[in-house]
Amino acid sequence: MTRWLAVLMMIGGACAAFQQPMARATGVADRGHPEIRGTGDLGIVVERASGSLVVFDASRRIPIGRIEGLGDLSHASAVMTPDARYAFVFGRDGGLTKVDLLTSSIVKRIMQAGNSIGGAISDDGTLVAVANYEPGGVRVFDAATLDTVADIPATWSGGRSKVVGLEDAPGRRFVFSLWDAGETWVADFSAGSNPSVTRLYGTGDRPYDALITPDGRYYIAGLFGEDGLTTIDMWGDTLAPRRVLQGYGNGEAKLPVYKMPHLEGWAHAGDRLALPAVGRSEVLWIDSRTFEEVGRSKVHGQPVFAVARPDGRHVWVNFAHPKNDTVQVLDSLSGAVIKEFKPGPAVLHMEFTPRGHEVWISVRDANAVHVYDTRTFEKKAEFTAASPSGIFLTSRAYRTGF
Amino acid sequence: MTRWLAVLMMIGGACAAFQQPMARATGVADRGHPEIRGTGDLGIVVERASGSLVVFDASRRIPIGRIEGLGDLSHASAVMTPDARYAFVFGRDGGLTKVDLLTSSIVKRIMQAGNSIGGAISDDGTLVAVANYEPGGVRVFDAATLDTVADIPATWSGGRSKVVGLEDAPGRRFVFSLWDAGETWVADFSAGSNPSVTRLYGTGDRPYDALITPDGRYYIAGLFGEDGLTTIDMWGDTLAPRRVLQGYGNGEAKLPVYKMPHLEGWAHAGDRLALPAVGRSEVLWIDSRTFEEVGRSKVHGQPVFAVARPDGRHVWVNFAHPKNDTVQVLDSLSGAVIKEFKPGPAVLHMEFTPRGHEVWISVRDANAVHVYDTRTFEKKAEFTAASPSGIFLTSRAYRTGF
Repeated sequence: MTRWLAVLMMIGGACAAFQQPMARATGVADRGHPEIRGTGDLGIVVERASGSLVVFDASRRIPIGRIEGLGDLSHASAVMTPDARYAFVFGRDGGLTKVDLLTSSIVKRIMQAGNSIGGAISDDGTLVAVANYEPGGVRVFDAATLDTVADIPATWSGGRSKVVGLEDAPGRRFVFSLWDAGETWVADFSAGSNPSVTRLYGTGDRPYDALITPDGRYYIAGLFGEDGLTTIDMWGDTLAPRRVLQGYGNGEAKLPVYKMPHLEGWAHAGDRLALPAVGRSEVLWIDSRTFEEVGRSKVHGQPVFAVARPDGRHVWVNFAHPKNDTVQVLDSLSGAVIKEFKPGPAVLHMEFTPRGHEVWISVRDANAVHVYDTRTFEKKAEFTAASPSGIFLTSRAYRTGF
Repeated sequence: MTRWLAVLMMIGGACAAFQQPMARATGVADRGHPEIRGTGDLGIVVERASGSLVVFDASRRIPIGRIEGLGDLSHASAVMTPDARYAFVFGRDGGLTKVDLLTSSIVKRIMQAGNSIGGAISDDGTLVAVANYEPGGVRVFDAATLDTVADIPATWSGGRSKVVGLEDAPGRRFVFSLWDAGETWVADFSAGSNPSVTRLYGTGDRPYDALITPDGRYYIAGLFGEDGLTTIDMWGDTLAPRRVLQGYGNGEAKLPVYKMPHLEGWAHAGDRLALPAVGRSEVLWIDSRTFEEVGRSKVHGQPVFAVARPDGRHVWVNFAHPKNDTVQVLDSLSGAVIKEFKPGPAVLHMEFTPRGHEVWISVRDANAVHVYDTRTFEKKAEFTAASPSGIFLTSRAYRTGF
């Protein structure tokens, strides 16, 4: 999945330097004496400035290790293996690193391209795919060994296109879009390591990011060059891009890239989807069957993420600079803001526990990660991390599009 | 969650005796030398006749251990801890057993009642609740220690009621129904270990099982004594039972209990729910917003489970005796049967991997567990288990109502 965290990183003040090494906590594992433990409640925090990860225990809400040497993590995302032990970290510099959360160590690290923008893992956990800007295309690796399985150059009449919005779909498929070509491709590995690639034209002008719905049915791409979004019904007999929300952004002046909302921010809440509006202090509510707009909520600033608590009852929103010290919580039936609070400077990411009882929030310029109870909004824990950005729990392994 | 596996067990021939000890496979763990490994891909198979469990590795598709001494598992179900290491197994005899899948051993076992019918784990993983027939009520235990946290007798004007349909709801809540009283209660532990209990009247005549939708919004109870089902919108300002599908079973002769479909069988597939019809060789399709019937599929026999593959694209169905050697797969858009095959005598349970690429099927009278690719229907593995019934993967920890 493409993450435009790099964009978010540009917002707000200069990055605080890495100031204090994280205190070693109980339960620290190392190669020599890995801990015997369950791994379903582990997670990582990306420390973007130092190219490192904090490994944490979400049950005890404490850091348990650190992994260094991951290169440029200024725009990093991660996916998890089905056994909930390993993470694949996609770095901005084309680095692909497999890390072991039980031993807090790097298993293998390769430089697979010059410039990359996120990745995905196949539904069976055997293939890891990376979307690359340079050279434009997708590379697919064996999840066990990181050996190359397939190389899919994104060729079009203009040469090679940058690839964005790489998503996993059920049936060992990957879906991704070509920024330059305005196309969406489906690479199907169901027959083995030689993919059949279906090329769909007419996605629109410069798709910049995408998501796939939790059931794997709809692939939805955001368009940088025009209003609206494009959806593809992956259950259809024939796959065809369809423009939706054509009034979305209609009549607005073109906005700088750094205000584009993050598409991971689409949130399924009951019968509706929540979508951060582009350049406006609003969250849009979309009918999840028709993709028509059914309402708007006024919010504190320009939203970056609008993420549903896993049960869909509330939607949590953070904001672009200069209002990025604040989080608002919306009721997904009424659309009303029911809570506002200020975790601190530069709230970059929010990760819910899989059943939604707690949320992990990175507060970059406070060099802190906070954990909140999602019902009482009480802060339950806090620990130090250096310029924390993305937070990823191992339970992402069990969700399509994560 | 209440499981009517006991009912299923009565169907079909006599149980085959436990005939051959499972071959020890690679990766077997024991207390002395537990394996260092991720736990997100572990699972258990209930061996009902011998009161034991097979622990398996879903990635390698092999058994890795056995746990014995769990008492009467003729009607057993299980829930998983958030770290994906431990399971709580609810036995028919009132036994509650905490088992460690990493070491294939019993951590603790208590006899918490005389006769019980399933359980649930709170969204934060700290509370385990059990629904009891005798004495009628719910008992709640600390997930770490199995110490008693709360005892909720199901008292009504007729004395104490049997409890069924125990489900977890977001916010440290448990919802359950009273068979004798025709009520549904909500026990809210959000303030600590002393629950506030909300008592809802008018659920209907003898609720016999229930489910909660994956978002925790709708609690739905099946009624033994009348047509229709009862739903409660847990997002509502006031909680009130509402009768739905009132024509369901209308005009039919009353049917023996053993033909009641399993409510876990409700499957969310796209915009519809699939429901095994009562006493008819049909699967009903229900609009997931209105709860109105929108279609029916003719199937091979009386369905027991109709379970959606996690992406909702297909619904897999097994059947009551004497047609219980067969599985059919339905297309969830057209309702058409797209595949039929015969795994063997007495297909009791189907468990999908969390992203749906494979399905685990227990074939009781073949003493076998099969693993199938859900796209090609190819059998990918098979191993011996003694009269296998329920199959439970650790990834259930991350789902509401599982």
